[in-house]
Amino acid sequence: MDIATLLGLILGVVFVLFAIVMKGSPLLFLDPASAFLVLGGTGAAVCVSYPLRDVLGLVGVVKNAFFYKEESIHDTIALLVRFAERARREGILALEKQMEEVTDMFLKNGIQLAVDGTEPELLRDIMETELRHLEERHKKGKSIMETFGALAPAWGMIGTLVGLILMLASIEDPDALGLGMALALITTLYGSLMANLVFTPMAGKLGMKSKQEIQIRELMIMGILSIQSGDNPRIVEQKLNSFIAPKMRRMKEER
Amino acid sequence: MDIATLLGLILGVVFVLFAIVMKGSPLLFLDPASAFLVLGGTGAAVCVSYPLRDVLGLVGVVKNAFFYKEESIHDTIALLVRFAERARREGILALEKQMEEVTDMFLKNGIQLAVDGTEPELLRDIMETELRHLEERHKKGKSIMETFGALAPAWGMIGTLVGLILMLASIEDPDALGLGMALALITTLYGSLMANLVFTPMAGKLGMKSKQEIQIRELMIMGILSIQSGDNPRIVEQKLNSFIAPKMRRMKEER
Amino acid sequence: MDIATLLGLILGVVFVLFAIVMKGSPLLFLDPASAFLVLGGTGAAVCVSYPLRDVLGLVGVVKNAFFYKEESIHDTIALLVRFAERARREGILALEKQMEEVTDMFLKNGIQLAVDGTEPELLRDIMETELRHLEERHKKGKSIMETFGALAPAWGMIGTLVGLILMLASIEDPDALGLGMALALITTLYGSLMANLVFTPMAGKLGMKSKQEIQIRELMIMGILSIQSGDNPRIVEQKLNSFIAPKMRRMKEER
Amino acid sequence: MDIATLLGLILGVVFVLFAIVMKGSPLLFLDPASAFLVLGGTGAAVCVSYPLRDVLGLVGVVKNAFFYKEESIHDTIALLVRFAERARREGILALEKQMEEVTDMFLKNGIQLAVDGTEPELLRDIMETELRHLEERHKKGKSIMETFGALAPAWGMIGTLVGLILMLASIEDPDALGLGMALALITTLYGSLMANLVFTPMAGKLGMKSKQEIQIRELMIMGILSIQSGDNPRIVEQKLNSFIAPKMRRMKEER
Amino acid sequence: MDIATLLGLILGVVFVLFAIVMKGSPLLFLDPASAFLVLGGTGAAVCVSYPLRDVLGLVGVVKNAFFYKEESIHDTIALLVRFAERARREGILALEKQMEEVTDMFLKNGIQLAVDGTEPELLRDIMETELRHLEERHKKGKSIMETFGALAPAWGMIGTLVGLILMLASIEDPDALGLGMALALITTLYGSLMANLVFTPMAGKLGMKSKQEIQIRELMIMGILSIQSGDNPRIVEQKLNSFIAPKMRRMKEER
Repeated sequence: MDIATLLGLILGVVFVLFAIVMKGSPLLFLDPASAFLVLGGTGAAVCVSYPLRDVLGLVGVVKNAFFYKEESIHDTIALLVRFAERARREGILALEKQMEEVTDMFLKNGIQLAVDGTEPELLRDIMETELRHLEERHKKGKSIMETFGALAPAWGMIGTLVGLILMLASIEDPDALGLGMALALITTLYGSLMANLVFTPMAGKLGMKSKQEIQIRELMIMGILSIQSGDNPRIVEQKLNSFIAPKMRRMKEER
Repeated sequence: MDIATLLGLILGVVFVLFAIVMKGSPLLFLDPASAFLVLGGTGAAVCVSYPLRDVLGLVGVVKNAFFYKEESIHDTIALLVRFAERARREGILALEKQMEEVTDMFLKNGIQLAVDGTEPELLRDIMETELRHLEERHKKGKSIMETFGALAPAWGMIGTLVGLILMLASIEDPDALGLGMALALITTLYGSLMANLVFTPMAGKLGMKSKQEIQIRELMIMGILSIQSGDNPRIVEQKLNSFIAPKMRRMKEER
Repeated sequence: MDIATLLGLILGVVFVLFAIVMKGSPLLFLDPASAFLVLGGTGAAVCVSYPLRDVLGLVGVVKNAFFYKEESIHDTIALLVRFAERARREGILALEKQMEEVTDMFLKNGIQLAVDGTEPELLRDIMETELRHLEERHKKGKSIMETFGALAPAWGMIGTLVGLILMLASIEDPDALGLGMALALITTLYGSLMANLVFTPMAGKLGMKSKQEIQIRELMIMGILSIQSGDNPRIVEQKLNSFIAPKMRRMKEER
Repeated sequence: MDIATLLGLILGVVFVLFAIVMKGSPLLFLDPASAFLVLGGTGAAVCVSYPLRDVLGLVGVVKNAFFYKEESIHDTIALLVRFAERARREGILALEKQMEEVTDMFLKNGIQLAVDGTEPELLRDIMETELRHLEERHKKGKSIMETFGALAPAWGMIGTLVGLILMLASIEDPDALGLGMALALITTLYGSLMANLVFTPMAGKLGMKSKQEIQIRELMIMGILSIQSGDNPRIVEQKLNSFIAPKMRRMKEER
Repeated sequence: MDIATLLGLILGVVFVLFAIVMKGSPLLFLDPASAFLVLGGTGAAVCVSYPLRDVLGLVGVVKNAFFYKEESIHDTIALLVRFAERARREGILALEKQMEEVTDMFLKNGIQLAVDGTEPELLRDIMETELRHLEERHKKGKSIMETFGALAPAWGMIGTLVGLILMLASIEDPDALGLGMALALITTLYGSLMANLVFTPMAGKLGMKSKQEIQIRELMIMGILSIQSGDNPRIVEQKLNSFIAPKMRRMKEER
């Protein structure tokens, strides 16, 4: 679970509420119709921009920004080195008995393929294609999020323009002018908040997670191929260690 | 047919209309002269920017964002594997009898060339040139759409400036000031809506479709060349499968 | 002659004039001092940005956006194939007699070099250097145009700031305030129109033409080298055809 | 210590204060709630955008923009050349006695590895991985800083919108309107100042330092490898000198 | 001397002054405190962004945008060809006597190295390192200029915000409101002018000069290496001519 995403969202809303409460009533800022226009309009434009399936798939992607099992790169290396030792001693088929230790589906699949005697080239091809598709899916999720972030302020301004035009066209009552303009500006506020607190930062977070997840999967591919080729466990460890900073490496060895 | 494009456009307009109706009259927002200025000016500027032929060709391109036969990548692979089996058994000439099964013109052309005994290098060259030209055409269509999206808000602002200047130059009647400013802002609203609901999102959709269409055509080229070289149907299938995610692959095999 | 450039410019002005006439007097929008400031200031800044020679050379470049002999790629291929046939039959020296058929200076030069017996490497080097310099010149022209397009709105705003400051500093007469602000806004309108109707779109058109012109010249180089090396005319044609879409190719063959 | 960072920050604040004091009271510009909203909101959004660990690690990174021991590239070359001479005369093990001369941990580690007889390939791999991770860490720090710089003005505007809406909704007292608007604008001022004096320029400075630090470490790697392979000290010096401008080189030789 | 830089700067100021004088008094626009804030604040932020040494070195860089000896590429080629002839006839040592003909320090250094019998690889390495450092220095100068251009409008807006807040907080006297706002806008005007007349265009000019200077130095390196390897003067000329357009080449030959 990435506490920072939730924390950031809550803190952002709290800071804005705090600023509001200090000087006036937060009720003024609750305008469902405005929220409806900005969110709805932005979502509609995103539907024009991406296939429906991808837009609906965004929900699953967003989850990644909040929850994700932080796969320890150290644990993964330790596991692969253990597997390498066993495979060295008892042959690669022996790994089948240890499969329940593996929780990551990607790694499980890969080891199963190795145990099944898949050709190294084919194994690498299958795993890298899967990784490439994962990366594509991540990239698409991130870019939909960025599109949301780019369109939200524009739709906030569209709402404000609608409000301003309605207000200006009926200035019989100068007293209502202030309130009308205040309401008109609320959509711009909503659009800015959505873009600068939710969509754009979340696109950034998705990009970070994707990078992390892909790096660990690349390490898994290298590890499986190294085990399959019968490398000495020490060499497997050395190869995998090149993915992490030397400073971290030494810390691990001390343990 | 891509339902999301149409749905998004309709929803976007509905959301804006809803916001208008809740607070005033939609009639105020119907200003043909403003629409004429923004669309006309943007179109004129696009004509300065692109050859007339390409601008006129945009109509055909836009259709792609709404309608397109979703060519199933799985069906295409299945078809190519079937063809590979027949070619293996009865020789490549036997494919001529199965030509009516192929509906895609690009694939039909390619198989015809193979049946006609075209040299592999020439066949690849012809098909890749055609693909490159398709890609160029797609890119041009997308970039014209993006130009529309970049110019529409600018022309909306030009309209607002014209309106503001006219209004400010004749402030003898302060009562008319509000309405004048409201009318002036309508072009900015039009420009923003066009850019953020229609042009820019549609350019995004065109880009997505293009990527999909080109990927399936690359698969076709690989398939035809593999059949022509007399590859074993299993190998043809394996080669083509590298275009799709392993998860999808297995699903297919179960069928 | 590219009708779209002229048409776009005229239509753009007509649309703006139409919007003005519908609601007021176009005379209000004629302010030579404003035009002077925006154009002059933009031009001055472009002079700081580019060598004087390049800025003055822009006039010749702009012509390309309006007039240009649409060199038919099909005619060029046909001509080169004819030359290849003659060179095959009567030797490359025979081409000297057909030189008057060639109107394009670049092609003429290249054939002359081939006839003179220039080494293939040197010939390619000379022609590609010339092409590279042409491309550089085109790129510079386009980037000066883009600089004009980027600076014009900024100078429009500078003019508006000058006008606003002058107006605000002397608000003894509130009646003149409206007109003063109207005049101040005119420079912003001028700057926006110049950028969004003339400069930026024209930079786009220049880029399109450059791409076209360079593509046809690359085809010429390939053709001359192929003729010089004594290729079979059929092979010359096949090589050159790779520059055009297969669909176009077949159309030509039917003729 | 980089005096320019501190100097720039102080001067920037002094210039703004000076401009304020000349025309009014600086007390008006002290609004803790506004500062709280802009900084807090920006920070919250950065937390949504980056993992918490990286955001907290920014403090260490910021220090780099103020303090950093300017590692002299000349001293480093001189040291490495001295080490090369000793290693040539007395063998690489002799370097162990001179280790206390080395203050840079990266260089110390590298020499220790060489003395320990690490294989050249492994040594290079370990040091380059460490360098790559350093670069990654620098890049992340810079990009968090840039995110701060991009979000601060947006949150300044969010604060101004909140203030404007509150003010407009309660225009019973026209006298308070001016002060209300002044307060509303303060968040925009805060956001602009943070972005344009602190965050964006500091991101630039971090980038400069990173480049410098990485260049000197690349020189160290090359030097250690050259010493390890037993190169003649003159050749070591020549290799390392290619990192610095020839003009600087000659200056050194004169010394 | 590049007349266009000076001309552009003077013309830009003249155009603005002309627009001011036509409608009011230029004295209103002279506000030293505003100029102080915008320039000072921008400069302070640049100091946070770049090392002090580089910022101070900008003065020398700026000179390049005004004065620079237009090194004739034709003269350089002619000189190198003359040197090649002499070196061919009398040996490379004979060039020492002609050294006073060479005014360019870079070329002088290179020829001296060749005369001294430096190894070709080392000579190329030394000269290319020097060139790379020159390019780095040019790039840094340009990017500092661009930073000035990006920050000036931001600091102009900061000044305007300060002015607006001060004015709005003390609207007891509505008559002073106009003048206060006028003064507030002056910093925005200053910032826009600096960015759009001086900094950004000058960054462009610096980039152009750098490209030119580096191209001529690359030609020098190629020439020296060609002379050193004892190439025939005709071949030296041909090699160097590949740097200039064929059209220019022939013009030279006619002379």
